[in-house]
Amino acid sequence: MDVINYMQETGQQAREAARILVNTDTSTKNNALLHIADVLLERADWLKTENAKDLVAGRDKGLDAAMLDRLTLTDKTIAGMAEGVRQVATLADPVGTITDLAYRPSGIQVGKMRVPLGVVGIIYESRPNVTVDAAALCLKSGNATILRGGSEAIHSNQAIASCVRAGLEAAGLPTACVQVVETTDRTAVGELLRMPQYVDVIVPRGGKSLIERVSAESRIPVIKHLDGICHVYIDDQADMDKAIRVALNAKTHRYGVCNAMETLLVAEAVAAEVLPPLAEQYTAKGVELRGCERTRAILPACIAASEEDWSTEYLAPILSIRIVADMAVAISHINHYGSHHTDAIITENYTRARAFLRQVDSSSVMVNASTRFADGFEYGLGAEIGISTDKIHARGPVGLEGLTSQKFVVLGDGHIRQ
Amino acid sequence: MDVINYMQETGQQAREAARILVNTDTSTKNNALLHIADVLLERADWLKTENAKDLVAGRDKGLDAAMLDRLTLTDKTIAGMAEGVRQVATLADPVGTITDLAYRPSGIQVGKMRVPLGVVGIIYESRPNVTVDAAALCLKSGNATILRGGSEAIHSNQAIASCVRAGLEAAGLPTACVQVVETTDRTAVGELLRMPQYVDVIVPRGGKSLIERVSAESRIPVIKHLDGICHVYIDDQADMDKAIRVALNAKTHRYGVCNAMETLLVAEAVAAEVLPPLAEQYTAKGVELRGCERTRAILPACIAASEEDWSTEYLAPILSIRIVADMAVAISHINHYGSHHTDAIITENYTRARAFLRQVDSSSVMVNASTRFADGFEYGLGAEIGISTDKIHARGPVGLEGLTSQKFVVLGDGHIRQ
Repeated sequence: MDVINYMQETGQQAREAARILVNTDTSTKNNALLHIADVLLERADWLKTENAKDLVAGRDKGLDAAMLDRLTLTDKTIAGMAEGVRQVATLADPVGTITDLAYRPSGIQVGKMRVPLGVVGIIYESRPNVTVDAAALCLKSGNATILRGGSEAIHSNQAIASCVRAGLEAAGLPTACVQVVETTDRTAVGELLRMPQYVDVIVPRGGKSLIERVSAESRIPVIKHLDGICHVYIDDQADMDKAIRVALNAKTHRYGVCNAMETLLVAEAVAAEVLPPLAEQYTAKGVELRGCERTRAILPACIAASEEDWSTEYLAPILSIRIVADMAVAISHINHYGSHHTDAIITENYTRARAFLRQVDSSSVMVNASTRFADGFEYGLGAEIGISTDKIHARGPVGLEGLTSQKFVVLGDGHIRQ
Repeated sequence: MDVINYMQETGQQAREAARILVNTDTSTKNNALLHIADVLLERADWLKTENAKDLVAGRDKGLDAAMLDRLTLTDKTIAGMAEGVRQVATLADPVGTITDLAYRPSGIQVGKMRVPLGVVGIIYESRPNVTVDAAALCLKSGNATILRGGSEAIHSNQAIASCVRAGLEAAGLPTACVQVVETTDRTAVGELLRMPQYVDVIVPRGGKSLIERVSAESRIPVIKHLDGICHVYIDDQADMDKAIRVALNAKTHRYGVCNAMETLLVAEAVAAEVLPPLAEQYTAKGVELRGCERTRAILPACIAASEEDWSTEYLAPILSIRIVADMAVAISHINHYGSHHTDAIITENYTRARAFLRQVDSSSVMVNASTRFADGFEYGLGAEIGISTDKIHARGPVGLEGLTSQKFVVLGDGHIRQ
């Protein structure tokens, strides 16, 4: 297979499909999504058979249990995929929405219309459900998609792709609206990142090394986040019940997720009050605590944190704790060591809450709420294609709107520029 | 001078200044802008003296009259710069604006807050007024700026930079909020494009070759447009008075601008009616006409257009004309040959107007209005840092809002994720 030629053709077909999708009405797109959900369920047994090929190869390659688990398709995960696609069908279609249409002194009316980005390239690792989740969001937002999954899921992804194609055909849409790259040759990824004429944006989903490689190589804008080093700062004017509730939830609700707290900052005036009961509950849940010197003076069982701890995303039951003089020091710590993902203050003080919201430079900034809320579904976006910690285009959870752009529309009555 | 080291230091200082600017209140920013305007006027004679050095060097280098004209500072252009800065001070500050704050089923409130991008790099050619225009817009939107002007304007730009610094100091802001690169060494540009740790977005202003070079080399997102191949399509249901008025204005109001019409498309049913009176007026204004075969059958004096004409931005009194069967063909022509900048339909037909707005894939799409309206001031953005024909981040004229991003803000009352 001539991979470069294959990718160029894939890109060209995606661009052509995007030209059709931009003008496809909402009901046709919804119809395609509902058909895709149906086909996934109808072909569940075949999907599991194809998936089994990947699982056998994965065991032979020595993939660990966690990776095999993420790779496995069951009746339940297939039903979940179908349900996810149906939910995307229920979301409002952002394409064509006109906002801010207003008269100007010249007499023209000027507004903005939401339009698809065009072609979205998705590069992802093992979970096969990304294939259909991402395809559904892109389709609903009027974008064509080129998906490139991990080699360990090639049979599963191709099987899912054929279900998606069947759904598209049933709705009268070109199958090139969603293309899943058929080769596991890594040249394909490099080529995908170098086709700005065919691809408008790249969304990498997976581990940090994948995202770093994609960002470094891409000649196309990338929507991404690298780390989720999230903080909760307990202010000396915090309500202590809320502080303990939120700090526990932010760390222990789930460990391996990007919006979990990794560092707890505590105002020195309340450290001796709040840390002992918190530490007891963390320890009961098996969370390892690593603290600054002042923290260890209060919690003798706590391990000493190193400088490196402040910039580490554990994704594990480990928490670093630092006692700070006041909110200003906490904000400096967050802006310096954090990853601009999600950070929260716990305070009853109005002025500090207001200042924290303004001064913390992160994609989500919270008052008296758990960092675990940083999520497209919780924010009301319906679903998310990813989370961005960049500032260009989209910041925070990226849903349908993040997969669109806005063009200006101008309405006149024969108006000319004087 | 160690240019790489110098640019790294410039970048670092810009990043530090940006951290201060993000939290600077509106009145301090306005105060700085008003001081800058005052200093420009106070030092007008000195600015002209410095500018004269560039003009002498420019004449020695053989710059043509048009370039020397764009380079020249007069009392009038200096007053214009000062007035432009004062106008930016009157614009609403977008930073900190919270929108869409709404309760979610979980009980949290989620909204979006506008925040500066951080550090904006501007790379531009001869016009020294860009130095202060761009600096003013970036300052008002809370961004630090690194400006790199053309070598032919080095004395003028440095003189303007010193006025800007004096204004910043008078308002108590760090001078690193606006830095104008002091070296004409071209290595500086390459370095500026490769400092994503210090620069968040690049805005190139100048000719196509500059913009192509910047886009190809940059490792940082670029806000740009390459071409302005704008169209007016006269539909067979157009009001002929409006059609003639708009088609004349779009071409002849100014020739050397990106939003001037370059190709006129005419529905065949009305070509014989509308083209002769239009051609007469174009010819009276000295516009050269290049037409398709059918156009030439109606206008025998018209030169034959080549395939290349349809994708040429003349920026001159030249117009290509094509007769098309209907709106569908016109839209195909525009999406194929155009540059996705600004395109207009002239029609009284409601359904076609609606379809044209949706189907034309350009940064500005107009009904019954001259393409010359595609401009930040005309759109009510106050001023523009440039026009983008890209789809990521900003599309069309880019004003203060395009120099900002949005972060999510979440307000809770001790809410945790269940």
